[in-house]
Amino acid sequence: MFPRPSGIVTLTTDFGLQDPYVGILKGALLRASDKPRMLDITHDIPAQDVAAGSFVLWSLQQRFPAGTVHVGVVDPGVGTARQLLAICAHGQYWLVPDNGMIGAVLADAEALEVRVLDLEHLRIKPESCTFDGRDVLAPVAAWLATGRYGFSAMGPIAAACERRDLVFAGEARVVHVDRYGNLVSNVRAAALAAGGRVMCGERELQIGRSYADVEPGQPLAYVGSFGLLEVAVREGNASEVLGMQRGAPIGVTSP
Amino acid sequence: MFPRPSGIVTLTTDFGLQDPYVGILKGALLRASDKPRMLDITHDIPAQDVAAGSFVLWSLQQRFPAGTVHVGVVDPGVGTARQLLAICAHGQYWLVPDNGMIGAVLADAEALEVRVLDLEHLRIKPESCTFDGRDVLAPVAAWLATGRYGFSAMGPIAAACERRDLVFAGEARVVHVDRYGNLVSNVRAAALAAGGRVMCGERELQIGRSYADVEPGQPLAYVGSFGLLEVAVREGNASEVLGMQRGAPIGVTSP
Amino acid sequence: MFPRPSGIVTLTTDFGLQDPYVGILKGALLRASDKPRMLDITHDIPAQDVAAGSFVLWSLQQRFPAGTVHVGVVDPGVGTARQLLAICAHGQYWLVPDNGMIGAVLADAEALEVRVLDLEHLRIKPESCTFDGRDVLAPVAAWLATGRYGFSAMGPIAAACERRDLVFAGEARVVHVDRYGNLVSNVRAAALAAGGRVMCGERELQIGRSYADVEPGQPLAYVGSFGLLEVAVREGNASEVLGMQRGAPIGVTSP
Repeated sequence: MFPRPSGIVTLTTDFGLQDPYVGILKGALLRASDKPRMLDITHDIPAQDVAAGSFVLWSLQQRFPAGTVHVGVVDPGVGTARQLLAICAHGQYWLVPDNGMIGAVLADAEALEVRVLDLEHLRIKPESCTFDGRDVLAPVAAWLATGRYGFSAMGPIAAACERRDLVFAGEARVVHVDRYGNLVSNVRAAALAAGGRVMCGERELQIGRSYADVEPGQPLAYVGSFGLLEVAVREGNASEVLGMQRGAPIGVTSP
Repeated sequence: MFPRPSGIVTLTTDFGLQDPYVGILKGALLRASDKPRMLDITHDIPAQDVAAGSFVLWSLQQRFPAGTVHVGVVDPGVGTARQLLAICAHGQYWLVPDNGMIGAVLADAEALEVRVLDLEHLRIKPESCTFDGRDVLAPVAAWLATGRYGFSAMGPIAAACERRDLVFAGEARVVHVDRYGNLVSNVRAAALAAGGRVMCGERELQIGRSYADVEPGQPLAYVGSFGLLEVAVREGNASEVLGMQRGAPIGVTSP
Repeated sequence: MFPRPSGIVTLTTDFGLQDPYVGILKGALLRASDKPRMLDITHDIPAQDVAAGSFVLWSLQQRFPAGTVHVGVVDPGVGTARQLLAICAHGQYWLVPDNGMIGAVLADAEALEVRVLDLEHLRIKPESCTFDGRDVLAPVAAWLATGRYGFSAMGPIAAACERRDLVFAGEARVVHVDRYGNLVSNVRAAALAAGGRVMCGERELQIGRSYADVEPGQPLAYVGSFGLLEVAVREGNASEVLGMQRGAPIGVTSP
């Protein structure tokens, strides 16, 4: 029922790359087992921005071999009583704090199981109150990725957990601005019916397949690589040109 | 004739590290094969700056085991009809869009072969119009690095491709400013004859072997680790002190 | 006596991630051996800031499997006569320039041995005067990590080396400001006696176990994940709120 571990562990955090935190987390994982393959997704989630982390975790769900372990740490509640979760969904494993970071993944999943990490049962005594990524999630990820412990050994099934979907719930809006200034919305490709219209404020955008469909400097709406509606400016920065940031509403109408 | 694959894939892109693009590209590669070893060169090429990417690719050519696969993605033309190339040069493999990013590598190569990726033959159907790095180059790199497909299976020999050398063609100038503010020029060591002079604007620079040859705060011309003429300021930032950026001309005269 | 190599090489540098230097260093290591596992700690040490690098190296000492090779390169003296050191301390190996970067590790170590890299004996001829990380430390790290050469083959025992402790010597002060704005001091947990007081300027701080012990927006002193006294502001940035940077004094008094 549960996928065989792929031996791959991905890391998505708000640790940044200036501090030694990412390296120290990896060291903790390697002390538990040197077999897993670790792969950085990003460590530049804005500090303590759970919704931004939620979008990134969601973006991984079809993108890795079955049985991959995704560790997500944006954890402003570290040191409080909030729980740590182990989740099986989309044929992958997820290890996250129980703060809604996994909400978008849960909302999308058909079959899933959510367990609460049982530190006593796993014989984990955190060395610090402020670095559960190192003290808990790193060794647990190593054990899960190598099959030393199966998913059902992680702890009891969660009676309740934070399922708020911080990405897709609510109005159509920009949920991510990428490095190029492209505006990624929470509108799925399927919602963009033929003959539909896309509005940024008062401005109606041309809908195309790719940047090449408009002249340089012109904006374009299209289905991007996430399978979501995006807005770009050819050879330009849509966020700057259109003055739109994360959270800005996007109007999508059916014909 | 073609080098045996080393199993190593390097990545040079303008994706940045904030977005999940690098991680998703790696996931796509791992879905094709979990055997290659992936290694980041940089993902901080300025967005869509093909010339900057070209310098970085050039800098790799003698630096990896024979048969390494170098993937370069600075690709403002993604989604247009521009082709994707597979190149064998300097005993290494290169996968790049056909936009001049590989020009400096081609200009330096004696024996080389350039092929156009044949997506139909390779049975690749891109999932998106805007992320060929994930949809095409990642699986192709995995296949090439593991020997699943040899180089000659990549597609037909290119009748023509963009061979403009964006680094070494044209005047002597700064082609890269590094993190320390050192000014890296496109002047090769061999061009710096004994008795020659190096001018930055009106200022003639002392020529030395290393920073220690001048007093702190003083500028110096020397052959740097790329085998190119560089200008540094000891314990300082040459770009700031001399007010020179990428593109600034450097005068080099023979005695 | 010397630990068996773990096969892991960590990298701590001030190279940044924009330039190809990190990738080229890794390529040099792979040309020496493709067996070691390389792991980035950080490459964002402020340029030429030896003391900042020293803190990061110190932070690694209990965090990796025995026999791990830690390479540290913050090296403003590259190209001068300064030596390169190989050190065995805390059950780990360290390769660094002799400029005090290893001082805090040495100060903490009970049993240790310091050797000077003997390039002639190791048959290393640096290709450049300005990139010993690539030309010397990378191959040496590969040889040490794979056991091709044992520690005692690195060169003669150092008659003297720079042992200044740039982290723990001197007054109680902030030695690292992390991404969240948390202020990490050089005061060890053991020095924080029950009933003791922590002062930032005129302000006495509440002492707690974790952020949750104070209200949002309030500052807190606690023992952080490094085992050192830290100051944070719950759901805020202590460096900004308290106006304190690296080097700022912290007052710690016993009851």
